[in-house]
Amino acid sequence: MIEQQIKAAIRDIPDFPKPGIVFKDITPILKDPLLCEKIVDAFAEKLSTTPIDVIAGVESRGFLFGLSLACKLGVPFIPVRKAGKLPYTIKQRAYKLEYGTAIIEMHIDAFEPGQHVLIHDDLLATGGTVTAASELIHEMGGIVSGFAFVVGLGFLNGKERIAPISDNIIVLADY
Amino acid sequence: MIEQQIKAAIRDIPDFPKPGIVFKDITPILKDPLLCEKIVDAFAEKLSTTPIDVIAGVESRGFLFGLSLACKLGVPFIPVRKAGKLPYTIKQRAYKLEYGTAIIEMHIDAFEPGQHVLIHDDLLATGGTVTAASELIHEMGGIVSGFAFVVGLGFLNGKERIAPISDNIIVLADY
Repeated sequence: MIEQQIKAAIRDIPDFPKPGIVFKDITPILKDPLLCEKIVDAFAEKLSTTPIDVIAGVESRGFLFGLSLACKLGVPFIPVRKAGKLPYTIKQRAYKLEYGTAIIEMHIDAFEPGQHVLIHDDLLATGGTVTAASELIHEMGGIVSGFAFVVGLGFLNGKERIAPISDNIIVLADY
Repeated sequence: MIEQQIKAAIRDIPDFPKPGIVFKDITPILKDPLLCEKIVDAFAEKLSTTPIDVIAGVESRGFLFGLSLACKLGVPFIPVRKAGKLPYTIKQRAYKLEYGTAIIEMHIDAFEPGQHVLIHDDLLATGGTVTAASELIHEMGGIVSGFAFVVGLGFLNGKERIAPISDNIIVLADY
């Protein structure tokens, strides 16, 4: 039900960000406030038995549903940001992209050691960014209790990559 | 009431992003889901008489409360993004920073001509980015019906700069 509604809203953009890639544009979803609420409700329902002390949302699109979901579940929201954006003392992790390297950062007081962290982003592709976020969370003493994505690109095998971290992987609309 | 709660949560970070600047860190607000809900409720109350067809939120931190507010008001959320991030056909606007130039973009189908657009960001500093967003919205035929910020740095005179665009400027916690 929710999967069909999400897929009906998503717009395919051929050759973005480069030739041969079909980009899944979620901006039409954001134009439908009822669908956005349903997405947050669907996450909350699927996460009802998951231990969650904080939700970590990945910049930028993970900020969209991440804060709404955190409010819905009544837990803190933690931003996972690109290098140089977070103002307080940070921990960082570099990870490989197809070309070059990216860095993600979290504040050192994002959560307490032993707390359960749910990682959220809008889309699961190869899983590179959320794997780096998981490693950072582990290094900071946290427990990754699951992943929540609006969209998944199954053919990129992101689920297989992140399953060893936690097999509690929620993808509302999988391709 | 809400102003005191926001100010009590905000963390001052001296010398970020550069010496002499005291950065207002909103991440402690994000760790308090009840305060986040109160912020969205306060915006909704203060905007109850403002015509709003869509809410435009400025990347990245304007995505946090922007989508929640759009859902609360039952209107579409429109992302205003940095150059190269939006996948569909865009309109863009360059604007001056202290050093150099930045570009913001919106999708050409973000809203219909004649619609009322509320612009949201987490913080009003000099108003440069939201002024550029306003100019882009005007160019696309939209009407800026107001601005909503969680925090304002009054000493940077952002309100004075944007008042000619719309004097309907909501700042929940002003410094």
